Amino acid sequence: MRKVYIVGVGMTRFGKFPERTVTDLGAEAILAALDDAGAGVTDIQFAAAGHTRGGSCAGQRAMAQVGIAGIEVLNVENACASGSSAIRWVYQAIRNGLYDVGLAAGMENMTSRIRGVIPPNPEDLEGALGRVMPSVFAMVARRHMAEYGTTIEQLARISVKNYKHGSRNPRSRFQKEATVEEVLSSRMIADPLTLMMCCPTADGGAAAVLCSEDALKRFGRHRPVQIMASALQAGEYRTIDTDMAHSGLAERTALMAYEEAGAGPKDLDMIELHDCFAPAELTHYENLGLCGKGEGGRLIDEGRTTYGGEVVVNPSGGLLTKGHPLGATGVAQACEAVWQLRGEAGTRQIEGARLALIHTMGGGVSALEAGACSVHILGI
Amino acid sequence: MRKVYIVGVGMTRFGKFPERTVTDLGAEAILAALDDAGAGVTDIQFAAAGHTRGGSCAGQRAMAQVGIAGIEVLNVENACASGSSAIRWVYQAIRNGLYDVGLAAGMENMTSRIRGVIPPNPEDLEGALGRVMPSVFAMVARRHMAEYGTTIEQLARISVKNYKHGSRNPRSRFQKEATVEEVLSSRMIADPLTLMMCCPTADGGAAAVLCSEDALKRFGRHRPVQIMASALQAGEYRTIDTDMAHSGLAERTALMAYEEAGAGPKDLDMIELHDCFAPAELTHYENLGLCGKGEGGRLIDEGRTTYGGEVVVNPSGGLLTKGHPLGATGVAQACEAVWQLRGEAGTRQIEGARLALIHTMGGGVSALEAGACSVHILGI
Repeated sequence: MRKVYIVGVGMTRFGKFPERTVTDLGAEAILAALDDAGAGVTDIQFAAAGHTRGGSCAGQRAMAQVGIAGIEVLNVENACASGSSAIRWVYQAIRNGLYDVGLAAGMENMTSRIRGVIPPNPEDLEGALGRVMPSVFAMVARRHMAEYGTTIEQLARISVKNYKHGSRNPRSRFQKEATVEEVLSSRMIADPLTLMMCCPTADGGAAAVLCSEDALKRFGRHRPVQIMASALQAGEYRTIDTDMAHSGLAERTALMAYEEAGAGPKDLDMIELHDCFAPAELTHYENLGLCGKGEGGRLIDEGRTTYGGEVVVNPSGGLLTKGHPLGATGVAQACEAVWQLRGEAGTRQIEGARLALIHTMGGGVSALEAGACSVHILGI
Repeated sequence: MRKVYIVGVGMTRFGKFPERTVTDLGAEAILAALDDAGAGVTDIQFAAAGHTRGGSCAGQRAMAQVGIAGIEVLNVENACASGSSAIRWVYQAIRNGLYDVGLAAGMENMTSRIRGVIPPNPEDLEGALGRVMPSVFAMVARRHMAEYGTTIEQLARISVKNYKHGSRNPRSRFQKEATVEEVLSSRMIADPLTLMMCCPTADGGAAAVLCSEDALKRFGRHRPVQIMASALQAGEYRTIDTDMAHSGLAERTALMAYEEAGAGPKDLDMIELHDCFAPAELTHYENLGLCGKGEGGRLIDEGRTTYGGEVVVNPSGGLLTKGHPLGATGVAQACEAVWQLRGEAGTRQIEGARLALIHTMGGGVSALEAGACSVHILGI
């Protein structure tokens, strides 16, 4: 099995671009990633595209729009982990020698069709009865508060941190700082979650060029970032004895990635994790092993997950401020990790970042036991 | 790289089941495939699910419904080639040693939401102007007729053959024979294509259990069928100098599969090919190398693609009579090939079948240069 590297990344700004098609957003990101890698369209031998509402063969359309044609293209869908799943399967194809150079793209146009919460699947009876994502994470928050004494201010501080990070990210949908008071006084969405504790939908695209060690010499524009580990798992779907305040799926998937990378949470310089709601970030501190169960609130209080702390979580601003164009999110997380590891993250650069983890959750069939969890570890 | 086998297959009947959910249809097929393989739910280490309108994480939901949980699940989409793409990537995962046993599923519920033609992608301007699938294949037919003197009766004979095959298939949506006159006098859809030259939409599911050579001993219920070749490609998307009567994509993908299998069209005992419309089957005779360009009409006239001929094409009845639940189609083609190769196809058994080809086209961005073409060769 061969080593696999990311040699180029690119993304659009995330925001409200209802007039732009999903393939147009994908194409902009793909061109940016090719340019970043110093790659031409004929270098790409395989492409996977993650999207959840792009229609049939949106990947092929986005590739064709920039001139990538006549190769193998696979569209992959794992809800919010669609983009991460695209990265994983381009990684697997290269790692196993099927191809030398591949492209993973993620793209989504949401704001032209979705207002408010993401509509549940047509056959999701609980969703139809109101168990949509904000309700699920409101329950996660309430459970964590009941179980461990976590406070609403601690949840608000997660938003404050990510708004601060996002204020330094020119590709973020929101680019302004916020106070605890502003977060708490924003509109109530699902008690105790206010608007600023919920990530906004967005339109956007992100892409990454991956290659084998042998092919590295063709793409010498930047220092290559190695994919040290890749794990993708589905939930166990237990409906009883489930710890609502945690995700066994995230815990299990992270352990697989740590084992493959030969590294643990203490070795990480940065994490992009799936902060679809403020309590999601808090519980993922615990799921990813940054602290023990119930200690997530203390982590945010003590500033240990921002600049100057042990590990910077969501330097990009995360889903909470950057926005969450579902299929694009996982690839955008990889973009941020690559820029940080290469030392190109400008005013939000993490000093000497060498090891990054990116984590995405997809779907929500049974509370936190979602349909997909993906964890990748990247190093330089 | 390891040899990969199909050790169990299963499918629902294809038909109009608007009250059944996509996951329910998938689950029935998955259970049938597990039973056929003599496999338990804990044998499955990886699953890929092909569907085009199942919503987010439909694969995970179908797996969870039968008790397959806590493994890696990937939803793949390549329009009508979604099911084939699922087979290909389970095949790749096993071939490269990532997993030993995997499951490929395809499933679709269409009739509850689609009447008549499949609606084009929202951003498909040509589709919005009327260039939907029946129009495209009407142009293919017209071009073939103009170029090679192919007749409308020859196109009708393709439907007659597939209706005859389908009449022997208890899982086919239609199960009655038809005459040339009936085909020609059925309702006009897109001149010259009448209703019976167009495949019907359908609801259905299909699944296959794949494993490595080492794992074969665990699944001894039936003779294993080897996947000898697998190819998946996207189109070149040339809009000028395109031969409307042929698909360079299908030709190129088939050549890749023939080369991998070390076999050619003359070696095949059966083919399940993508007969979404009667002229599609005719042109694919030529694209797959069964005859030279322009000779497809003669092939059907001389009965060379049915029982007693050189190769039986679409013994299942094909898309034209079995029905076409998009994501399920490619996996259902594999089911038919496996049953034929194992000698279990009942009244439609092809004597001594040893080598089968299955071929699926997906999408239609630029006429026949579709978004995806998949070709697999299976042998026993």
